[in-house]
Amino acid sequence: MNDSDPATKSLTSLGKAIVEALQESRCPTLEIPDRRTSNIVFDENSNQYVLGLSRSVRDSSNVKHVKRFAQLTWAASFAKELLRTSRTSSLRDLYYSSEAFGVDFSDQSESDRIVTDLECLTGLPRESFGIYPEEHSSIYGEVLMRYTVSGYEGKEIDLTVSPDGLPIGPALMTAEPIKSDAELVLAVESGGMFSRLIETKAWKRFNAVLVQLGGQPPRSTRRLMRNLNVSLGLPVYIFTDGDPWGMHIAKVITSGSANSAHIKNLTIPGAKWIGVTPDDIVHYSLPTEPMSDADLKRLSELAQDVRYMESEWQHHINQFKKILIKAEQQAFSRFGMDYVVDTYLSEKIG
Amino acid sequence: MNDSDPATKSLTSLGKAIVEALQESRCPTLEIPDRRTSNIVFDENSNQYVLGLSRSVRDSSNVKHVKRFAQLTWAASFAKELLRTSRTSSLRDLYYSSEAFGVDFSDQSESDRIVTDLECLTGLPRESFGIYPEEHSSIYGEVLMRYTVSGYEGKEIDLTVSPDGLPIGPALMTAEPIKSDAELVLAVESGGMFSRLIETKAWKRFNAVLVQLGGQPPRSTRRLMRNLNVSLGLPVYIFTDGDPWGMHIAKVITSGSANSAHIKNLTIPGAKWIGVTPDDIVHYSLPTEPMSDADLKRLSELAQDVRYMESEWQHHINQFKKILIKAEQQAFSRFGMDYVVDTYLSEKIG
Repeated sequence: MNDSDPATKSLTSLGKAIVEALQESRCPTLEIPDRRTSNIVFDENSNQYVLGLSRSVRDSSNVKHVKRFAQLTWAASFAKELLRTSRTSSLRDLYYSSEAFGVDFSDQSESDRIVTDLECLTGLPRESFGIYPEEHSSIYGEVLMRYTVSGYEGKEIDLTVSPDGLPIGPALMTAEPIKSDAELVLAVESGGMFSRLIETKAWKRFNAVLVQLGGQPPRSTRRLMRNLNVSLGLPVYIFTDGDPWGMHIAKVITSGSANSAHIKNLTIPGAKWIGVTPDDIVHYSLPTEPMSDADLKRLSELAQDVRYMESEWQHHINQFKKILIKAEQQAFSRFGMDYVVDTYLSEKIG
Repeated sequence: MNDSDPATKSLTSLGKAIVEALQESRCPTLEIPDRRTSNIVFDENSNQYVLGLSRSVRDSSNVKHVKRFAQLTWAASFAKELLRTSRTSSLRDLYYSSEAFGVDFSDQSESDRIVTDLECLTGLPRESFGIYPEEHSSIYGEVLMRYTVSGYEGKEIDLTVSPDGLPIGPALMTAEPIKSDAELVLAVESGGMFSRLIETKAWKRFNAVLVQLGGQPPRSTRRLMRNLNVSLGLPVYIFTDGDPWGMHIAKVITSGSANSAHIKNLTIPGAKWIGVTPDDIVHYSLPTEPMSDADLKRLSELAQDVRYMESEWQHHINQFKKILIKAEQQAFSRFGMDYVVDTYLSEKIG
């Protein structure tokens, strides 16, 4: 990272503004986009949640504000130090690091919120500052990436190097896609399906880059998929369990979440949920389970959700409400180990 | 895999015995080591749990036995097919695959139990048959491994190829260690610590192969660490959170668990728990939290546990009972980002 890096630039100008205020004997203030629900709007053009125009001010002369003001400036200085030394930190580590500076967070959820404030303030995702959650998902396929992290600068890696796949950690997330012989990205929910598609060489058959989401994927995974979509022009297909939760994994990838409304360039509007749709459950006579009360409650919530207004999605919701059953993506194994590749995926993306 | 592979051999002889019995018009029976608690004994010589001599018989002529007998023979034939086609399966996939054959499992915990029966019967771990759970941990360090899985046979991989580490999946677990310039294995509990030790180049400084356990590690991870310990002679150090759960992660690595009493060659008796010990919590003045009721209950259980009889471990338990506080391994960040490497690990393994 260097001084012309947008993240460094944005932190430097933030620091300068504070120092200037102090030099002029003013109490510094910070203006942060308001991310309360009332200021989260669904933008139909980009088909995603974004923040509205409302702003809130943190005023260091206000005793009610001064604690969060101090926490936020500490988080900014911690982020700057990470950039300067080309280091990364987990959100948990950031929480513990604060104690060295006498900065008081009552628990990690408080420091996590301050990191989100920093994102809103700078308009940049925490990943730009090298701050990550702990969870990872994985990737496998014919893509050549070039690392930018310290110690590996310029080194290239072929994402088929390990038949177990590669974790999408800080290094891979910040790597640049160089080229790919693949024709599409196929993101799957479970690790079992990911392993099966690797070892049956389904990735070769469909010319696919495989991504293991592991449930609702971390933002770094969505960002990498978007990068492959935008830089290399690969269309993205999403294959999840056939239940409201699986469907919503796909929806967050296409249209974002309220939690990330302040982050730009994270959604993949053209990504397609191939299934398991409620129609697939019926059509393929999959082994099923009845929906639980939690499933039904979730379904009712999604029916009201502005992201599900298009007729295609309303159809899925109505079908789920009609059949009242659900199926895992693993359920295709009922017809033999190769069925999911030879029949289901061939019909969906073949 | 080929016919001389011990797993294939053992399944073939199992099948032959059943066919012979049927040809002689006898109802086949299977004799399985009994794994009820009453037959699990702690072997002081090997310092681990093993099964005693008690056996139970599954008799296909007994209506009470015939269902489990059929389930077990189906699981054996599924495993044989995996070996024949060089494929792997998750435990979940095995559960769903059973439906294709009209084999009835009421849920996955029932099919998981049958897989354990198969392990007891053959004396081989399910990994030998290519059957795995979904969870993974990761590894990073200067080790050269040679893959044996289909499509990658003979290919070598340097475990520093990805700065995010490599997942310990089916391919890496069955790979052969070729050589290593490292001097030790350092297993850490959390992903945050693993990433930090990679990017600060602590692995170089301590000449260490890093393993991320991710809580109680999957058996494949323990097996790979043991393989590095036995084949390459690398001593194993374990660095976990300073609480009863972290301590017990180390204990299971050194002395095994009752759940795996039927599996051989899984423990690393010489592995060392470096901390965070209760003495470390005091000595390094770490940020702490009070122990919860669950922590205290766990501590009392461990105090009675035969694996904790040595004075060193009794000391840890007594100290925990005295201080009644706990600390995460991330807590060293309180003294700055480099403290855990420059001070703590240097004093422990430097």
